[in-house]
Amino acid sequence: MSETKTKGLLTFGLNPQDELNDLRMSEKAMPLLNHVKRFIKETVNPMTEEFHRLGANKTDIWSYAPGQLEVLETAKDKAKAEGLWNFFLPDAHTGEGLSNLDYAYIAVELGKNPMASETMNCAAPDTGNMEVLERVGTPEQKEKWLKPLLEGKIRSAFAMTELHYASSDAKNVNTRAVLVGDEYVINGEKHYISGAGDPRCKIMITMVKTDPNAPPNLQQSQILVPTDTPGVKIIGPQHVFGDPDAPHGHMHIVFDNVRVPKENMLLGEGRGFEISQLRLGPGRIHHCMRAIGQAEKALDLMVTRGLTREAFGKPLVNLGGNLEIISRARIDIEAMRLMVLKAAKAMDVLGNQEARIWIHMVKAMVPERVCEIIDQAIQMHGALGVSQHTPLARMYANTRTLRIADGPDEVHHMVVGRNELRQYREMPEDQSLAAVFRR
Amino acid sequence: MSETKTKGLLTFGLNPQDELNDLRMSEKAMPLLNHVKRFIKETVNPMTEEFHRLGANKTDIWSYAPGQLEVLETAKDKAKAEGLWNFFLPDAHTGEGLSNLDYAYIAVELGKNPMASETMNCAAPDTGNMEVLERVGTPEQKEKWLKPLLEGKIRSAFAMTELHYASSDAKNVNTRAVLVGDEYVINGEKHYISGAGDPRCKIMITMVKTDPNAPPNLQQSQILVPTDTPGVKIIGPQHVFGDPDAPHGHMHIVFDNVRVPKENMLLGEGRGFEISQLRLGPGRIHHCMRAIGQAEKALDLMVTRGLTREAFGKPLVNLGGNLEIISRARIDIEAMRLMVLKAAKAMDVLGNQEARIWIHMVKAMVPERVCEIIDQAIQMHGALGVSQHTPLARMYANTRTLRIADGPDEVHHMVVGRNELRQYREMPEDQSLAAVFRR
Amino acid sequence: MSETKTKGLLTFGLNPQDELNDLRMSEKAMPLLNHVKRFIKETVNPMTEEFHRLGANKTDIWSYAPGQLEVLETAKDKAKAEGLWNFFLPDAHTGEGLSNLDYAYIAVELGKNPMASETMNCAAPDTGNMEVLERVGTPEQKEKWLKPLLEGKIRSAFAMTELHYASSDAKNVNTRAVLVGDEYVINGEKHYISGAGDPRCKIMITMVKTDPNAPPNLQQSQILVPTDTPGVKIIGPQHVFGDPDAPHGHMHIVFDNVRVPKENMLLGEGRGFEISQLRLGPGRIHHCMRAIGQAEKALDLMVTRGLTREAFGKPLVNLGGNLEIISRARIDIEAMRLMVLKAAKAMDVLGNQEARIWIHMVKAMVPERVCEIIDQAIQMHGALGVSQHTPLARMYANTRTLRIADGPDEVHHMVVGRNELRQYREMPEDQSLAAVFRR
Amino acid sequence: MSETKTKGLLTFGLNPQDELNDLRMSEKAMPLLNHVKRFIKETVNPMTEEFHRLGANKTDIWSYAPGQLEVLETAKDKAKAEGLWNFFLPDAHTGEGLSNLDYAYIAVELGKNPMASETMNCAAPDTGNMEVLERVGTPEQKEKWLKPLLEGKIRSAFAMTELHYASSDAKNVNTRAVLVGDEYVINGEKHYISGAGDPRCKIMITMVKTDPNAPPNLQQSQILVPTDTPGVKIIGPQHVFGDPDAPHGHMHIVFDNVRVPKENMLLGEGRGFEISQLRLGPGRIHHCMRAIGQAEKALDLMVTRGLTREAFGKPLVNLGGNLEIISRARIDIEAMRLMVLKAAKAMDVLGNQEARIWIHMVKAMVPERVCEIIDQAIQMHGALGVSQHTPLARMYANTRTLRIADGPDEVHHMVVGRNELRQYREMPEDQSLAAVFRR
Repeated sequence: MSETKTKGLLTFGLNPQDELNDLRMSEKAMPLLNHVKRFIKETVNPMTEEFHRLGANKTDIWSYAPGQLEVLETAKDKAKAEGLWNFFLPDAHTGEGLSNLDYAYIAVELGKNPMASETMNCAAPDTGNMEVLERVGTPEQKEKWLKPLLEGKIRSAFAMTELHYASSDAKNVNTRAVLVGDEYVINGEKHYISGAGDPRCKIMITMVKTDPNAPPNLQQSQILVPTDTPGVKIIGPQHVFGDPDAPHGHMHIVFDNVRVPKENMLLGEGRGFEISQLRLGPGRIHHCMRAIGQAEKALDLMVTRGLTREAFGKPLVNLGGNLEIISRARIDIEAMRLMVLKAAKAMDVLGNQEARIWIHMVKAMVPERVCEIIDQAIQMHGALGVSQHTPLARMYANTRTLRIADGPDEVHHMVVGRNELRQYREMPEDQSLAAVFRR
Repeated sequence: MSETKTKGLLTFGLNPQDELNDLRMSEKAMPLLNHVKRFIKETVNPMTEEFHRLGANKTDIWSYAPGQLEVLETAKDKAKAEGLWNFFLPDAHTGEGLSNLDYAYIAVELGKNPMASETMNCAAPDTGNMEVLERVGTPEQKEKWLKPLLEGKIRSAFAMTELHYASSDAKNVNTRAVLVGDEYVINGEKHYISGAGDPRCKIMITMVKTDPNAPPNLQQSQILVPTDTPGVKIIGPQHVFGDPDAPHGHMHIVFDNVRVPKENMLLGEGRGFEISQLRLGPGRIHHCMRAIGQAEKALDLMVTRGLTREAFGKPLVNLGGNLEIISRARIDIEAMRLMVLKAAKAMDVLGNQEARIWIHMVKAMVPERVCEIIDQAIQMHGALGVSQHTPLARMYANTRTLRIADGPDEVHHMVVGRNELRQYREMPEDQSLAAVFRR
Repeated sequence: MSETKTKGLLTFGLNPQDELNDLRMSEKAMPLLNHVKRFIKETVNPMTEEFHRLGANKTDIWSYAPGQLEVLETAKDKAKAEGLWNFFLPDAHTGEGLSNLDYAYIAVELGKNPMASETMNCAAPDTGNMEVLERVGTPEQKEKWLKPLLEGKIRSAFAMTELHYASSDAKNVNTRAVLVGDEYVINGEKHYISGAGDPRCKIMITMVKTDPNAPPNLQQSQILVPTDTPGVKIIGPQHVFGDPDAPHGHMHIVFDNVRVPKENMLLGEGRGFEISQLRLGPGRIHHCMRAIGQAEKALDLMVTRGLTREAFGKPLVNLGGNLEIISRARIDIEAMRLMVLKAAKAMDVLGNQEARIWIHMVKAMVPERVCEIIDQAIQMHGALGVSQHTPLARMYANTRTLRIADGPDEVHHMVVGRNELRQYREMPEDQSLAAVFRR
Repeated sequence: MSETKTKGLLTFGLNPQDELNDLRMSEKAMPLLNHVKRFIKETVNPMTEEFHRLGANKTDIWSYAPGQLEVLETAKDKAKAEGLWNFFLPDAHTGEGLSNLDYAYIAVELGKNPMASETMNCAAPDTGNMEVLERVGTPEQKEKWLKPLLEGKIRSAFAMTELHYASSDAKNVNTRAVLVGDEYVINGEKHYISGAGDPRCKIMITMVKTDPNAPPNLQQSQILVPTDTPGVKIIGPQHVFGDPDAPHGHMHIVFDNVRVPKENMLLGEGRGFEISQLRLGPGRIHHCMRAIGQAEKALDLMVTRGLTREAFGKPLVNLGGNLEIISRARIDIEAMRLMVLKAAKAMDVLGNQEARIWIHMVKAMVPERVCEIIDQAIQMHGALGVSQHTPLARMYANTRTLRIADGPDEVHHMVVGRNELRQYREMPEDQSLAAVFRR
């Protein structure tokens, strides 16, 4: 690694004049932010209430109740009409690009309402999938899958995690794809495929092993698997703290002699890791950005509850250490916000590869602390806090899962710690390790 | 408070020779413990698997699938036949009594399988309800409700928590019961009524306000409300982290002109707090005792996973700080176990009233730390940890709720802290406060 | 409080385009930073070694050993000659001003060597005293005390903390100054007067009560007391963890009928709080800025030790959770750095008064976490870590003290927490409380 | 290791009837405890004040001021006369033996005044040294060194820790002893030799390497080195947080061709580890026992301060989370007390070897948590807390050091964690590792 290249990684704050330290949103993105905030307030929030009202008594949790998709689509159309659409795509040929830094400011707002992202076609895992297709897809692949995704007509999933292998180590891919004639035949088992429960989910980017004898980094490939392909068997949902998260779902799927045309291969055999490394841009820290929004929401609920609920003749905020809990939440939210902004800026300035230690730092720091803040908001709400009557329990479950997804906290700390050592002595980067985190 | 009375509260470890420090199980209870362990292993564990298998695909989550109750009842009959029945009742006229200390050792075992308690008719909230009925029930009340409960024919609930009032302050009871002729007419709204979703739940002990003008401690009463009384309207379940916990359920119930005969009053009007204070015995720290068992189970799962799962070429236990996490879990489990045993012994020796600071200490200490241990076990399991495929997620949700139920952690710490101050200066005990915790 | 005024306080990150978020050092200050770094490396570090070598065997810890002051003065002369002098002063008439943001970057470097600040005449408490004199001093006061301070000829102290009163509440000033003829007669007792043990300390700015009957904010005054005034009796040093910190010292002083000319009054009777509010600028968060430097130093020592020390056949960094400890230290240092930079920028843009919540946040956050990082570095060093053979023990003692000085952590959290509430409801700022923190 | 032998280690709480769970003090020791408490109150506490008063102005910190030793000796004579003498020795031939459990109760009291132990000849490191001499000394060694130690005429030290090697790994002994004729010639460098600064310290048990070619466990020996032997050069004291802890001292000593008669060898060449394993009994957890006493003292000071000091118009205990801090301290003190008592009982029942996991657990748990409690007491005292005017700062420094001495926390956690794993799979105990902890 060259001297200049490592600079961004290693000399954290040592270039005080560097553009890296300018965390201002761009002038051109500011109207978008304001527009998004207004749109969430005026359109998404009321739509969300209506959406939940319509779904309250549905019997099949895996479908949408009559009217639900209509209100959602109406809001999406409105967003599209107002230009609040696909703005997650960075530097895209489609022109809607935002810098990571600008997106970060907006994503915080998206984090405050769980339906906001989808309404503006900026929801995971579609975002990462669209980004990959946009960068490595063939014209045919783009026409068939990217187009409807960009238009919000279909949804998608990313099938990577496997049941019996530690996904924190990316060498552990055991779903096999073998070329037989003009088709790949896929066999294996994946779980935690988020979004694959949605009836609108039509396509899965699937990580497979194509050559077990290749060097570790060249064994894997990514391939497009339509969800209605014969042999794609949904075993059921993985619950999250007992919640099936229907109809989105985190599905357990068996691939039983699933046959797809060889044209469905992305970029070429053995280039699965390379695509993971391409799967760059905002997608990687979107979750952390939105988590800041969730922490803001949790703090808002905590303070509101603490001011209005009384016990022993006083509002809860005046009892015990509650005021200090609020203070620590505020302080840590501001610290996390600055870290996320700096990581986003580093991606803009240095590129995703060179900025990766910042991404690891943020991924190790944010979900853990946001979990705690949400947990404290739960405690302030008493029994209500764990119920479905506040958004807190679901926010907790989501954020708790984030401490595991995309590499557990421990692995990110390992990478950050090793990077620190690297400033003191030559240490080769373990390639398979690095590969995990370049995803 | 007299000199002798405060002794148990205040002089924690200062009587080194005192019986309080003898934490040995009694000789007579030892065979029961061994029997319970064997019964769980040989009968309850296989029954639990069968029970879940039978219920896997049921469509109405609020009922039992065909065969489910049969396997449960078979196990219950076996337990009854073997004498493993109702042993929770301390000093009961029925003769099955165990000391709190002996029960504590057994409850740890019960905590390791969530169906164990019910199989031996030792499940909350029936235990507390049976205890109350046994102590304050009229012969008629006993015949009608205690008998079938003791026989395991019906189940019961305890309706206390109210929607709009902080239950950490026991003055906040607003469900009204007014004597009209020979009937009490009850109006109000309760939630988190655990177990009221079960079709077998036939009776609720309900906390009501009978005299708003009485002194704060004499306004409340407890009254028997059969679940099929007209006007008892189940609004729905309170989820716990998205899990409706069906068919047990934590129900939200409106009491809309519910009429029950005046004979359903327990002990007499205005004696609701007194009953809460009577609701003594093992019921109060059962949860903490079982939580130790849950922590043991979580540690067991954590170590098993850590030894068998590999990443980066090593079993997880050998990565990062995992070994220290395991060590801290073991150390804290042993410390919590000793604290629970000592609290149980204090109840045996000093009585529940005098031992109450020990109960507060244990209630403030155990659920919080057990939550952390379960959370660490979840992290060691990755995505599997939050799913329904290990018992960890449900264990977490239950234990997290325990930090709120029966007084949130903060209130127990407040009582323990104030007790500490009381050793330095005269401080009146705030009666309404004390009352909460004498429950 | 007007709408515009509250903006800086309340809308933490909500003005993404605001200059507040541009944390780049200015172009003009960059050469100074580089100069300072070079000067510390080439001049201060070797001087420090020589200074300690010369003092190693001195018998009177309260004086300087022969040669010690000479090497220090030589380095100071060099700093002055090179223009590295008094640059702490913001917007000063003397023209050496740096923005708080620029100073923050430099202060981090100063924090890495405890003698660096003094060598460049930027050491507390002289910095705050010079700032006050520069802003409110009369020409005579400036000539007599500010001039030699700016030239580094003398040193000074700030006598505020009192023995028997909680200094977290600024109303607690009990040292009396009574005007008798042309002199103020001062009686009282102060302690923790840092720097008053140094034989070069010639002047103390002393907080006194002049009018006990005035409104709480107008009772206090600040007055100049030369250290050689009769009646100024040094009782002895307050140790910090057993360390007298000689010859600097944190002295306990009795004022026994100390008489000073009435011209020594600063600004006028009853304006003591006003001066505290003026005592603005970098002085207030200097400590936090330097603490970041200390944390960097501690992390550097921790990693160096962890890489070179072996146990059980491995370097310590590879044992247990040490790599995660290193990672968390790095992450938190970066987060704290950004928070300090933002607080400094807020002071530049909004003024000290409007930026005060940022200062409270930083003061509540930084010393606590830096203490932990130093403590972890100590643990990595084993017995050496608590000894005098690494700078860690003294760094710990200093930083631990910082959690108490200038308002204990708890009070800063209280203010931050209350500010959060203020966004939800009108709450008057408690004036005496606010006053403490405007210091 | 046989089935029965491992039981005590592994089946922590699974033998509920076992004597292990009877934590009552013995009847015969109760009068001694009461006597000790009375003696500390009536004799040691006033003596301590007088002792410090006499030493307040001494110029040579490494000697005793006139009168100091006299008041100490008077108190020691009184203790001896009353039979409060050497009671630390377990199962000793001298007959003063106490069980570890009984001693634990007493040691808590000793922990509350730092001079109490010495006054009753129960101070470290003499206690461990006396125990070793009593068990493995020759009649000549006993006559010459054990006798005056038992009589309190001299003091002693234990020279083990080396400057350049991690003492957490006991293989790291590099001080060489070579037999030349009738003498061992010792060369090397040790530090942190506690007590070696005291003019009354006459003998050091010194860990040396006698055979570098032997198996790792047989390379070391322990040998008696009188402090006045030529070649024993005290380089200076190791400070602890800046405090030289004079005249006791933690000395850095060079052994420069130190010659001692071969008769000074303890037990025989190569048996150094064996002696470490013999160095059993109360000595090993004395520190933890006394630390409980220190925590009690810290809590006492914290509450007293919190009740008497006011800020913002309220006593500190009523501000913020202080009451919860007090509650958590009380809860954890009780938990630690029970753990220490159980570890002591395990040593009594199982022997030191089989009880060693309990000792590791206690050593990993207690010093860390007691440090935190003392730290919180410091915070409640403000600036006074870090000064010499409360015992807190020194208590903190001592307890912080305890987290490093006798194996750092991390190593104890490693052993406890590995023991947990051992219940799931066969794992050989790493002998050199085990050896460290058998010390």
